[in-house]
Amino acid sequence: MDPCPFKKKFLSQLKRDDLYFMSLAYNEAVDGWNEDEIPIGAVIVFGNQVIASAHNNVCKLVDPTAHAEMLAITQAAKAIGDWRLNETRLYVTKEPCPMCSGAVIMSRIGEVIFGLDDMKMGGLGGAFDLRSVDKINHRPLVHGQVMDAECHALIRDFLERKR
Amino acid sequence: MDPCPFKKKFLSQLKRDDLYFMSLAYNEAVDGWNEDEIPIGAVIVFGNQVIASAHNNVCKLVDPTAHAEMLAITQAAKAIGDWRLNETRLYVTKEPCPMCSGAVIMSRIGEVIFGLDDMKMGGLGGAFDLRSVDKINHRPLVHGQVMDAECHALIRDFLERKR
Repeated sequence: MDPCPFKKKFLSQLKRDDLYFMSLAYNEAVDGWNEDEIPIGAVIVFGNQVIASAHNNVCKLVDPTAHAEMLAITQAAKAIGDWRLNETRLYVTKEPCPMCSGAVIMSRIGEVIFGLDDMKMGGLGGAFDLRSVDKINHRPLVHGQVMDAECHALIRDFLERKR
Repeated sequence: MDPCPFKKKFLSQLKRDDLYFMSLAYNEAVDGWNEDEIPIGAVIVFGNQVIASAHNNVCKLVDPTAHAEMLAITQAAKAIGDWRLNETRLYVTKEPCPMCSGAVIMSRIGEVIFGLDDMKMGGLGGAFDLRSVDKINHRPLVHGQVMDAECHALIRDFLERKR
């Protein structure tokens, strides 16, 4: 596989908005591509500080649970010393899959901001919405389509080259 | 917390049926209790051999992703050298939560056998059913209520003592 043709983004740290944090998740996805993993990245933020950063690692680790979000959640819980992540925000380049959407619920992440929608497998509004389960014990805020064109191009081009 | 008052079960290995494998998951759950974790256990079986065995470890690891099923899936993928677990069966003492149900889909486990139902959070028929998502890319066989009274007593008594 050729190196990732997409450049990393370096936005000003002075404006710590959704685009800034999503650019960090995007850069993780680029790292994923360069390790021959499906390019999806995630960061977790607590009080405007990044406490976790990871990309998909399923192939290298031979571990179907090693999605970017899962790895970042494990890091974040270590960082704050509590498995409950209510005060954190997760930025991820693609709408979380069923497993990662469930992990968001179980870890009680306060807010999820994602790039492209996943109408086939996304569990936070795309294919289904875990928050609509009647007795579920946590409902994060969710908004998508942040930097979605760039996040989409990365995944689409990677998968096209793999075919 | 007092040591677990429930005894482990040692069934004959000569009859490798669902009850036998569930007894191994149950024994993992007992180990979980003795480490002050919510007592849920899981094993994964490939060709009638156990290739993974784990119990809930959220508190000790300070990791919300460290459910029995997740830890067992990671072990199983390592054991067979592939993240696709189509030919395996997961035995778990409680119906998987949203995260673990999603992990079953993502890892393509062939069959899930569980103990007690979870009508509040279970993702394989209790509270909702991931297999009913229209375009989901894998649908495991599922059957529940294997050794459910014993699996239920373990969790119920643990939580009552915690209150």
